[in-house]
Amino acid sequence: MQTYNAPLRDMRFVLHELHGLDALTSLPYFADLNAETVDLVLEEASRIATEVLLPLNASGDAEGCIVENGVVRTPKGFREAYDVFRDGGWNALAGDPDYGGQGLPESVNKLVEEMICAANLSFGLYPGLTHGAVMALSAYGSSELKDLYLPKMIDGIWSGAMCLTESQCGTDLGLLRTRAVPQEDGSYLLTGSKIFISAGEHDLTENIIHLVLARLPDAPPGIKGISLFLAPKFLPKPDGSVGPRNGILCTGLEHKMGLKASATCQISFDDAQAWLVGAPHKGMQSMFVMMNEERLGVGIQGLGVASAAYQSAVSYAKDRLQGRSLSGTKRPDLAADPIIVHPDVRRMLMTMRTTAEGCRAVGIWVAQAVDLSKHANTEGERKEAADFVALMTPVVKALFTDLGFEAASLGVQVYGGHGYIREHGVEQYVRDARIAMLYEGTNGIQALDLVGRKMPAHMGRYLRRLFHPISNFIEAHRKHEAVAGMVEQLERAFGALQLATGQIAQAGLKDPEEAGAAATDYLRLLGLVAMGYMFVRSAVIASERLAGNTDEPEFYRAKLASARFFIDRTLPQATALFLAIKSGKASMMALEEAAF
Amino acid sequence: MQTYNAPLRDMRFVLHELHGLDALTSLPYFADLNAETVDLVLEEASRIATEVLLPLNASGDAEGCIVENGVVRTPKGFREAYDVFRDGGWNALAGDPDYGGQGLPESVNKLVEEMICAANLSFGLYPGLTHGAVMALSAYGSSELKDLYLPKMIDGIWSGAMCLTESQCGTDLGLLRTRAVPQEDGSYLLTGSKIFISAGEHDLTENIIHLVLARLPDAPPGIKGISLFLAPKFLPKPDGSVGPRNGILCTGLEHKMGLKASATCQISFDDAQAWLVGAPHKGMQSMFVMMNEERLGVGIQGLGVASAAYQSAVSYAKDRLQGRSLSGTKRPDLAADPIIVHPDVRRMLMTMRTTAEGCRAVGIWVAQAVDLSKHANTEGERKEAADFVALMTPVVKALFTDLGFEAASLGVQVYGGHGYIREHGVEQYVRDARIAMLYEGTNGIQALDLVGRKMPAHMGRYLRRLFHPISNFIEAHRKHEAVAGMVEQLERAFGALQLATGQIAQAGLKDPEEAGAAATDYLRLLGLVAMGYMFVRSAVIASERLAGNTDEPEFYRAKLASARFFIDRTLPQATALFLAIKSGKASMMALEEAAF
Repeated sequence: MQTYNAPLRDMRFVLHELHGLDALTSLPYFADLNAETVDLVLEEASRIATEVLLPLNASGDAEGCIVENGVVRTPKGFREAYDVFRDGGWNALAGDPDYGGQGLPESVNKLVEEMICAANLSFGLYPGLTHGAVMALSAYGSSELKDLYLPKMIDGIWSGAMCLTESQCGTDLGLLRTRAVPQEDGSYLLTGSKIFISAGEHDLTENIIHLVLARLPDAPPGIKGISLFLAPKFLPKPDGSVGPRNGILCTGLEHKMGLKASATCQISFDDAQAWLVGAPHKGMQSMFVMMNEERLGVGIQGLGVASAAYQSAVSYAKDRLQGRSLSGTKRPDLAADPIIVHPDVRRMLMTMRTTAEGCRAVGIWVAQAVDLSKHANTEGERKEAADFVALMTPVVKALFTDLGFEAASLGVQVYGGHGYIREHGVEQYVRDARIAMLYEGTNGIQALDLVGRKMPAHMGRYLRRLFHPISNFIEAHRKHEAVAGMVEQLERAFGALQLATGQIAQAGLKDPEEAGAAATDYLRLLGLVAMGYMFVRSAVIASERLAGNTDEPEFYRAKLASARFFIDRTLPQATALFLAIKSGKASMMALEEAAF
Repeated sequence: MQTYNAPLRDMRFVLHELHGLDALTSLPYFADLNAETVDLVLEEASRIATEVLLPLNASGDAEGCIVENGVVRTPKGFREAYDVFRDGGWNALAGDPDYGGQGLPESVNKLVEEMICAANLSFGLYPGLTHGAVMALSAYGSSELKDLYLPKMIDGIWSGAMCLTESQCGTDLGLLRTRAVPQEDGSYLLTGSKIFISAGEHDLTENIIHLVLARLPDAPPGIKGISLFLAPKFLPKPDGSVGPRNGILCTGLEHKMGLKASATCQISFDDAQAWLVGAPHKGMQSMFVMMNEERLGVGIQGLGVASAAYQSAVSYAKDRLQGRSLSGTKRPDLAADPIIVHPDVRRMLMTMRTTAEGCRAVGIWVAQAVDLSKHANTEGERKEAADFVALMTPVVKALFTDLGFEAASLGVQVYGGHGYIREHGVEQYVRDARIAMLYEGTNGIQALDLVGRKMPAHMGRYLRRLFHPISNFIEAHRKHEAVAGMVEQLERAFGALQLATGQIAQAGLKDPEEAGAAATDYLRLLGLVAMGYMFVRSAVIASERLAGNTDEPEFYRAKLASARFFIDRTLPQATALFLAIKSGKASMMALEEAAF
């Protein structure tokens, strides 16, 4: 049985103690916000996740979505759950107050997203895609489009979808063929076929707003000739109510490994009326706003699944009786000890636990930077935060989803053979988590974005937003009694990261394939160091709380244990990653194509 | 689309050039065997795999098995494929010639098994379980039982199943409850329920022979009170034809993540007539014969899936056009370059390729030792080989299945979003491969077997069967021009393995939990070193062939490239594993149970 209760205490730790919500509440934009409100929001979100979304996770997987004559039916209960979700204002949580949103920080919103993804990843796609579409429309839409569409999308009565991929192109959008023909009234007619469109058609909302990449007749070839359009399923009447059906049809649903309650649609545009979003031929730029937002969200999906799989595995490990503890029987009253006594089971649980805690700490750090990039007081502060977000977006996306999948697979392993049986629910986490490494840019593409764009940008300025705080922290805590050993290990890993950075910068300058060959290992290395930094900082806080007068010693002792485990057991991978990177591209590229 | 053609050239390399088939053909038992015969067997097996089994892999997954009133129907085409398989004599390949087998070496048989598992893992379970049951019966059955059952099982007209697990016990068989009551005629009546019984009921053979663990009335509690029984689905008449139905019923099929064409049965024994195999209360011993055989076979499953996933990924990477090579356009005639030009795609393909090649080299090394353990000329040689098999069995099982799953997941990644779509067939490899980490003893149990039993056995005698050849090889090749750099890197990893061994031996002596905490990382470390050794040895052979007069320079250059990649990119993990092991159990066991 899948179990999930949001780890509210750890979420509060990350938000308040590790990153400090006051960095936001001190800003004019968040003047009305306070810690109590945020905690109430998280508690209520937790209730919705556990009571409304979780019960539909396994049944949604078993039932899947159905399409008939272009009409898509989501699994039993999804429509009702979406109404509860929307009525509760959860779509509007981080939305712009000018359009009816509640204006909560992204750093709070991302914790809510974590809960949603943990409880029901498939469900999370529907509001998730709307959120991305809202971001792109907010950034580049005309005021007419924003006034007409944003309030309903932020409310959630209308939802959003991103129509990018075509069968011949996903990664390489320069190859796309959907065409837009200008009309006399200033609108356009779209014709073409898209695939892999999450939430492209469904029965949860009265309208679906497609953001579509297409080519204008005078478009230059390739990536520079792509424009972004808005095409609604139903054309709104001037009063904002839904009018006639537009030329947009779901021609099929993909049969997928998992995420079965999320409708992944093939969408055909047949003279669909649409409006330009942003400048002609600048669609990739607008699309990247939406995409970056989504990439952070996809990272959070990995975190959510890891957290859910962890909880299920813990619950099983405490119940399942097999064998006796190596240090002597623990439960003589039972036929065997619960398997949580075994070191190897601990290894798996601690790996899953530290995946969730470490990703949460890094993820909310980045999400807070998103908030600061928009609302900090000075241009300099906003820019600095934006640099950090730019650097870390591919890391959050790829690292969290890789680790999330690994954690889900460990969850199955804790269950033994029972983990392979569908009724236990943990194999679903593996199938569901697998998609997150692929969509919104494969994890390989994230790694290339990191080494190819973010690392060299502005002579390494983005990188410094990560390296400086780590290096300052190490300097300041080298002699910190409680964590000195951990700081030393962090310093070693950070040293490996710095060396790898230098190596790639140098080799990649002469030969871009050298950077490409290093990319995935480098992303993992950087990500592990960022997590390690978060863990040692958490350990400092925990040790200080324990030295003082805390009434939660168990919580802070557990924080120390998590930090120690990650530093001891996971962070050493940094050394191996550095050695692999150092070996360069030669062995990767040596084999002739015909020899594969 | 799934594609698979057995990598016959690499198989011949491993069999003839790396391990030397002549080590076997020089023995009296294999006197009739020669290299040409073996190559013909492999070629014919390859044809069966590609033409008969592969076409049923995806359809079998989609259709699954069905149970109605205790009758199990395998997917369309399986029955016919099994007949072709059996008529071709493939069941009998490694069987004892005294009972109608062909007496081919296990090292040849395991290559055939690799092909079967690559083409259709679900199908492979049916003959695979029979093979294990034959081994146990051969080792411990009375001559009456052997004469009655072995010929038909080796032929494959009857199949076998292993009935161990019950819902309350899998790992901890001491908890099992199935009871055996002795009858006056010397037989027994079994009563109890078993779960997870692969091939426990199906429509492929006219009879199914269950090997069942159960307790006699006077059995001591726990693991020491378990006996092994043979219980046929149909009781044979004295002439060997099938007689009346026995009290054995399939009460349900498990719904699984994958492996859907393999019937995983719940089996109920209701006064089922059975015969003791081996001595009373010594069932675990007999079971381990069967289990060890199966464990090697399960390792080969991981290898098979890795090989199949690799081939599908290569085929896609050569076809799919996205982006341009970082070193300049490779195919100006096409809209984009095939993705195989990208370093990160190469990384994934080379990782999958070296997984398959490395596991194949290690696996056939161990399989050849199985042959030598039975048929070598002297007691000393047989014992030495048996030691090596004992050491490496858990490594082959856990390492190959872990790496096989990772390779399958990389296969999906190469396909991008299309990998998640069922029609492409690669996500099936992930779902199918996942079981192999769980059954026949979870991979955690394998690791405990390695550090808890195999490592300390006879003062490290088993370990020396691996360490001595590696250390001799390093000594002999330190100055070998073509591979000196690789030898140095192998030596570093081997040094880490030796240090880790010392650390675990010392700490584990005082505290078994220290060994338990190190187990999984140690198994991986030892496995990577064994693979590294195989790669450098292969590189030596390849470099010598290239220096001489070979008409296959491409093949040997590719061998060098594989070796270099593994040594550069994968073997550095040894360092990280050693550091993790060195940190000991403290951080793994620190968290109080309630804090999870």
